[in-house]
Amino acid sequence: MKKYSFKNDYSEGCHPNILEALIKTNLDQQNGYGYDDYSNEARKLIKRKINDENADVHFVSGGTQANLLVISSILRPHESTISAETGHIFTNETGAIEATGHKIHGIVTEDGKLKPEHIQSVLDSHTNKPHQVKQKLVYISNSTEIGTIYQKQELKELYEFCQANNLYLFLDGARLGQALTSEINDLTLQDIANFTDVFYIGGTKNGALLGEAIVITNDNLKEDFAFHVKQKGAMLAKGRLLGIQFLELMKNDLYFDLAKHSNVQAMKIKSAFQHRGFQFLSDTFTNQIFPILNNSQIKKLSGNFDFYVWKKIDEDNSAIRLITSWATPDEVVEGFLKEIERL
Amino acid sequence: MKKYSFKNDYSEGCHPNILEALIKTNLDQQNGYGYDDYSNEARKLIKRKINDENADVHFVSGGTQANLLVISSILRPHESTISAETGHIFTNETGAIEATGHKIHGIVTEDGKLKPEHIQSVLDSHTNKPHQVKQKLVYISNSTEIGTIYQKQELKELYEFCQANNLYLFLDGARLGQALTSEINDLTLQDIANFTDVFYIGGTKNGALLGEAIVITNDNLKEDFAFHVKQKGAMLAKGRLLGIQFLELMKNDLYFDLAKHSNVQAMKIKSAFQHRGFQFLSDTFTNQIFPILNNSQIKKLSGNFDFYVWKKIDEDNSAIRLITSWATPDEVVEGFLKEIERL
Amino acid sequence: MKKYSFKNDYSEGCHPNILEALIKTNLDQQNGYGYDDYSNEARKLIKRKINDENADVHFVSGGTQANLLVISSILRPHESTISAETGHIFTNETGAIEATGHKIHGIVTEDGKLKPEHIQSVLDSHTNKPHQVKQKLVYISNSTEIGTIYQKQELKELYEFCQANNLYLFLDGARLGQALTSEINDLTLQDIANFTDVFYIGGTKNGALLGEAIVITNDNLKEDFAFHVKQKGAMLAKGRLLGIQFLELMKNDLYFDLAKHSNVQAMKIKSAFQHRGFQFLSDTFTNQIFPILNNSQIKKLSGNFDFYVWKKIDEDNSAIRLITSWATPDEVVEGFLKEIERL
Amino acid sequence: MKKYSFKNDYSEGCHPNILEALIKTNLDQQNGYGYDDYSNEARKLIKRKINDENADVHFVSGGTQANLLVISSILRPHESTISAETGHIFTNETGAIEATGHKIHGIVTEDGKLKPEHIQSVLDSHTNKPHQVKQKLVYISNSTEIGTIYQKQELKELYEFCQANNLYLFLDGARLGQALTSEINDLTLQDIANFTDVFYIGGTKNGALLGEAIVITNDNLKEDFAFHVKQKGAMLAKGRLLGIQFLELMKNDLYFDLAKHSNVQAMKIKSAFQHRGFQFLSDTFTNQIFPILNNSQIKKLSGNFDFYVWKKIDEDNSAIRLITSWATPDEVVEGFLKEIERL
Repeated sequence: MKKYSFKNDYSEGCHPNILEALIKTNLDQQNGYGYDDYSNEARKLIKRKINDENADVHFVSGGTQANLLVISSILRPHESTISAETGHIFTNETGAIEATGHKIHGIVTEDGKLKPEHIQSVLDSHTNKPHQVKQKLVYISNSTEIGTIYQKQELKELYEFCQANNLYLFLDGARLGQALTSEINDLTLQDIANFTDVFYIGGTKNGALLGEAIVITNDNLKEDFAFHVKQKGAMLAKGRLLGIQFLELMKNDLYFDLAKHSNVQAMKIKSAFQHRGFQFLSDTFTNQIFPILNNSQIKKLSGNFDFYVWKKIDEDNSAIRLITSWATPDEVVEGFLKEIERL
Repeated sequence: MKKYSFKNDYSEGCHPNILEALIKTNLDQQNGYGYDDYSNEARKLIKRKINDENADVHFVSGGTQANLLVISSILRPHESTISAETGHIFTNETGAIEATGHKIHGIVTEDGKLKPEHIQSVLDSHTNKPHQVKQKLVYISNSTEIGTIYQKQELKELYEFCQANNLYLFLDGARLGQALTSEINDLTLQDIANFTDVFYIGGTKNGALLGEAIVITNDNLKEDFAFHVKQKGAMLAKGRLLGIQFLELMKNDLYFDLAKHSNVQAMKIKSAFQHRGFQFLSDTFTNQIFPILNNSQIKKLSGNFDFYVWKKIDEDNSAIRLITSWATPDEVVEGFLKEIERL
Repeated sequence: MKKYSFKNDYSEGCHPNILEALIKTNLDQQNGYGYDDYSNEARKLIKRKINDENADVHFVSGGTQANLLVISSILRPHESTISAETGHIFTNETGAIEATGHKIHGIVTEDGKLKPEHIQSVLDSHTNKPHQVKQKLVYISNSTEIGTIYQKQELKELYEFCQANNLYLFLDGARLGQALTSEINDLTLQDIANFTDVFYIGGTKNGALLGEAIVITNDNLKEDFAFHVKQKGAMLAKGRLLGIQFLELMKNDLYFDLAKHSNVQAMKIKSAFQHRGFQFLSDTFTNQIFPILNNSQIKKLSGNFDFYVWKKIDEDNSAIRLITSWATPDEVVEGFLKEIERL
Repeated sequence: MKKYSFKNDYSEGCHPNILEALIKTNLDQQNGYGYDDYSNEARKLIKRKINDENADVHFVSGGTQANLLVISSILRPHESTISAETGHIFTNETGAIEATGHKIHGIVTEDGKLKPEHIQSVLDSHTNKPHQVKQKLVYISNSTEIGTIYQKQELKELYEFCQANNLYLFLDGARLGQALTSEINDLTLQDIANFTDVFYIGGTKNGALLGEAIVITNDNLKEDFAFHVKQKGAMLAKGRLLGIQFLELMKNDLYFDLAKHSNVQAMKIKSAFQHRGFQFLSDTFTNQIFPILNNSQIKKLSGNFDFYVWKKIDEDNSAIRLITSWATPDEVVEGFLKEIERL
């Protein structure tokens, strides 16, 4: 029997509603390139949820694509972006942003989150104009790549700092659903739209086969965006595939239900580890947890389950990473909790 | 009632076999990024069909993405590519190739196909080194953007010319199925592999939701290709979506059956126009036809059908473009033939 | 004895006034990067000559550098430029513009000059948005690469057309001196400034060791230009070298005297050929002439003189290219005229 | 009276020998683009000095240009370079390297120098292929941007580490003369050639008006380099200007005499500060020194001299940066020493 994998949140296909919608609409002829009825309808739903009829919504295939598209469409050649060193664009996208010509300033953070003082320090060390790049954009992720989330006050302050310093704020929402349904979250989707210039709603890691919905709320950044989408190879001929999925995810808030499910499953596991007195690499409230186990415990757990050994703590102990998803079944979690009991 | 559209071959979803496979495999956990079982199996099938176990196969979302990936991975900064002016990269990809830093030499052709003498003329006018770019790659499409196809002897001569002149030959196969199942075709998929350095098999325009299979046969071009795929945002987390589709298309040659169907439907329509004495903008044998009609005929036909008016011939006449697809039903074609009769 | 070369206008060093100024100022300590007194003074002179105190003037080393800097600083990633196929950027800069990410539309012209109808034809064939690049800039040269020049009315109409179509007009002035001192010229330097958005005054081909003065008159294009200069490696630490040269060239209109000299020398030679009944490849009034000679005449002339055989006319005849410069001595021209007499 | 400036080593023009050579050769007609006799002769001299007849030597205008040219000519799109965070390319070139598409990994160092363990740590944290860039080149400077230099054993170990790890080693020699004539130096120019794959000899900061000589010793990196030089706008029409200067600098080792002079002047000043018990920000043996003074001392010194206040140490004290050059006169140094005495 195959082991159950907690390695990531994109191991399965998609939510059954999406498959049903694909079947139902399959032979309906539609316009290409995102001008189909489903995409139009999905865009409407998203704009309604953020209460901004003027927002622009573009659907693309994945996170790296969304990141490089947004950043390269905004920056002029001499401008740079600021990111945490744990940021996906800084470390895990094969230099995709630099490949479009732009420097990323990496910032060491405690918890994967950027604060105004981080940005200020970069600005302070780049005053030798025109010999140094000009900072123009701040990139953050919510939830972050290490599972932490922004509180409303934090995001608001960061956004106001950016506005005061002529910087755009871009939020990578590959796991935005998980952030907004975390038990400690106090942000709404509308807040996200209000306190950023552009962000995206991640589908791939929350029940879609593929797809991220880029939402541009700042008028300065809207013009000609579709040209960039086409140029970077991100415009699907059958854009309906993306539209249908976001339509299903946005209808009846399925998107948030799925994200909440993944969080709940992770919190059950976290709780079990906590009760047994285990420590964690960082204290997370989304679908990623990083318990610290000794080598023999890791070996035992990996008998029936797959996961990444994330970081060596010392000779005898390591943090492992466990990720749950919209599809993680209750019975699997229960089985895993029993194994924790036995450690 | 909605008009039937002959505007393009990506108006519908996908072949039902693909939907069935998506349903069947949906909750099976798989590795991400193209390392899933389905992608592995699909790669094997493709390599078997071209009889080259050493070929590298990469699945990506669309044609523009495939084109920019292949070309930017091959060329060094000072090198250029040669294309027909009708070539998709030259005219319809929002400067995607130039955006990766490379010049495209556009060549005016009669029929969308490149011949050795075309290439030679570019070489001859670029001898002022190092003040002019260095030509390194020839880009062709089969079938071409205007529906014509290469004969075996033509492709072979072009490939040999490229080899003699230290040029790579890259074939855009967005509509490769239609080319290889055309009634006047004498090429096999294995020939395509033998007489190019790299090519791709287009899924989007032949029954898939999305997806092109890039096949690299020249060893020089294989190294590190996956890095480029990731960097350009073309690596899907759920690569299974591409693998499953190509597995279905390649199994039992469904791919070729679908392409043949689209060709047959187009040829029925072409034949009807021919019998009625209509002229054509170009003589095509794939799923695109360009009959020349007068304005009143165009108006009549567009009552129940959608299509592009492609090129104005004179005040009274224009060529229209009709594209059929894997999904074009017999009854629609029959209905259309009746309308032709009534013109 | 060495042959005298008519191959180009950069075979010698620089005008003696420049050498004297270099000696005189040599040990004077100055700010780097173009903020020295000489550059400041030269900028003032140029702004006075075009009667625009708000213009921005930047000195860079050469023409390719000026071209790639201006164009890449203006265009966003999805925007393109339009040029004659004889344009330096299209054919003789090793893809420098494409290397910054932008397509150049090449236009076949009779005389190297662009007209509104040329631009209109490009606009007309690029209406399929966002699948095609967006035209944003028109690049012209005066004098052109084949020695022709724009008349005031021509430039004005082109500029007005550009303004009406939301296009910037950029004039490559590598040989601007020669254009403005041609016997058929009716443009002033101020006209050039008025009827373009940005242009440059070429020093390298008119008496300087190196250097082009980029003049930006359109406010939209001024911001942050120095960042681009630095980023592209075009900002000299000892910017004084450029400032001193342009100061000497602009003082007392030395620049125009030198250009006029080169034109006069060329016209003497042209006249001699005309009197003897020779034909020309094109009818030029600057320092480049293209007489058509038979092979034996070419052989004779090349006994004591160097020049390029430019274009084969037929088996027996070719056009040669003769270029004179600020440094071409009267006695050399007289010697050459005598050889023409003997043909 | 103007203050004497210790702000940098490019405040003056050039060594008088160069001016004399410019005068002497001024009207001699020469080939353009670096194919003149002087450039050829200078190349020969350099190759002789490094005892490598097969090296390729290219002259370009400045350091940023040399850096971006070398790096962009070597790296494929997915490859990156490693640099100290104090490295010129990392911090002071307006993102020039990223603008060519490549990530720079910045390393915090004690003294501006890279060691094998620094490189190893980058390699160790980039093993997630193909999701992370591939390291391919190590960039170092000698002397470094903060005045320190490499010892022979250090350079050798670094080079061997690079070779063992399939990395190229590139040495920025903007101040190579100062490094090689430092009193603690044990490297020769030939060692530099032996223990790197490519490096350059800086002229701008050591007596030339402008110019860096790029020397490529690794055969893999030689092909087509001139295309890159042209494409990046770095190929001067009057390449003679660079050739003449390097010919003068290399003849009779003028280059090393000038560098030594700048070092000696700096060491006199350093010694004076040391005798008075001042501390330094770092212990340097080239033409840059960083003494720490209190605010009132800084104010006094700046009465007659210009220099940068480099780094605030605490409320009362800062390090200043003093740079001497080939042109710094003895009497100026003596005057400055007297002021130090009076502090």
